Amino acid sequence: MHEVTVSQYELVYNFFSFTIAAMGATTLFLWLNRSSVAAPYRNAVTISGLVTAIALYHYLRITQSWTGSFTVINDTITSTGFRFNDAYRYVDWLLTVPLLLIELILVMRLSRVETLSKSIRLGSLAALMIILGYPGEVSQNSGTRWLWWGLAMIPFLWIVFELFVGLKTSVESQPQEVRGLVNGARLLTVASWCFYPVVFVFPMIGFTGGAATTAVQVGYTISDIVAKAVLGIIVYAIALRKSQYEKSGEPVLATV
Amino acid sequence: MHEVTVSQYELVYNFFSFTIAAMGATTLFLWLNRSSVAAPYRNAVTISGLVTAIALYHYLRITQSWTGSFTVINDTITSTGFRFNDAYRYVDWLLTVPLLLIELILVMRLSRVETLSKSIRLGSLAALMIILGYPGEVSQNSGTRWLWWGLAMIPFLWIVFELFVGLKTSVESQPQEVRGLVNGARLLTVASWCFYPVVFVFPMIGFTGGAATTAVQVGYTISDIVAKAVLGIIVYAIALRKSQYEKSGEPVLATV
Repeated sequence: MHEVTVSQYELVYNFFSFTIAAMGATTLFLWLNRSSVAAPYRNAVTISGLVTAIALYHYLRITQSWTGSFTVINDTITSTGFRFNDAYRYVDWLLTVPLLLIELILVMRLSRVETLSKSIRLGSLAALMIILGYPGEVSQNSGTRWLWWGLAMIPFLWIVFELFVGLKTSVESQPQEVRGLVNGARLLTVASWCFYPVVFVFPMIGFTGGAATTAVQVGYTISDIVAKAVLGIIVYAIALRKSQYEKSGEPVLATV
Repeated sequence: MHEVTVSQYELVYNFFSFTIAAMGATTLFLWLNRSSVAAPYRNAVTISGLVTAIALYHYLRITQSWTGSFTVINDTITSTGFRFNDAYRYVDWLLTVPLLLIELILVMRLSRVETLSKSIRLGSLAALMIILGYPGEVSQNSGTRWLWWGLAMIPFLWIVFELFVGLKTSVESQPQEVRGLVNGARLLTVASWCFYPVVFVFPMIGFTGGAATTAVQVGYTISDIVAKAVLGIIVYAIALRKSQYEKSGEPVLATV
């Protein structure tokens, strides 16, 4: 953990606090509105809220760990000696990233076989990706960081490929009314995910000391808000629109 | 952060504590009564409760930061050296002000296109306004404060103009029974919002030291109660009356 300046400390702290409020609000919004979507989509909305609830818990812990690592008195910052716990993010991702993929698959309402096989395959790849990234994240050595980064990129690229190519046919089988939204959710997931490996390499490409710490913390935090809270709201919007569509027209069960 | 007297410290503290109770109570009232309004208005009530819930979180943090900044022993107050965190208010507004505008738009039940375009436009302007205000708020320099105040006033005046002029036609398309209430909500929003830029300039127009700090904290707190809790109750009242009206008469969907 590198020394940060008072303003870097406060910037990171305020990002964390913003995220606590955003994750909490999104969770409540999703769970309060669960009953306004049709039964087949409730699970997708429930799980979207679970993802932000798990993130809320971890951001409370991350914030506590951050304020425990430093003391700011009279505009002077000192390290307390308690180490900032990087592992919270990985523990969070290990739970939320497979769930994120599952909420995306569930809201598409594919066949049961397809839902199950995609959930298991993408969920396992996501877990593997996070487990492989962790040894790199906690290392100070650039070579070690690149090694584990490279290994984690294998399941990462596989998932991105599946989201891009494998789910493309599923998107085309969605009703016309929601195709744009579903496609948006798919692209948002891919785009927000691409931030993580970039943020990971910040300390290896010139960011040093407090600037590296700040860039990594702010970078991961913004990515988490987009990948979890914004995606959750979009999944809810898809579920709502599909519920309305299926009530008025004939029920649509995508077959691919 | 300026030194305050013991009575100023206590006055501000008691205002914060009052606000925690008010925001918590409003949140619970709105969510408990969510199901008593018709389905099309539930989202407006849910979001009104989210706004006060987010404010509740931030007032808990603000209070914690306030009590952490000072120690009062035997009627003597001393600064602890821990800085009072001004950013909580801005982080709060960044989330709640766009939501406030959305709850107002939702309860009008405009067409889907109109709802979406107004929400995105007003929501983005509100976020811009708050981001522009922050660099001024944390500055001790009057010139810097006036500069950012002036910049934030541009989106501010745009929003006020839209609320006054743009939403006026929408108000006229509301059923007769709720026109007065909707108009009241619109005017209350404009009026309560006008407090914020006035409170902001307190330190620039003669309030100094502890008096400036106290005036700013009390001023923002009163504005927040009116703009969030009182507005939330009015939005609920509109939603309730429109639900009753539409049950008895024919459903009304404002078209403008």
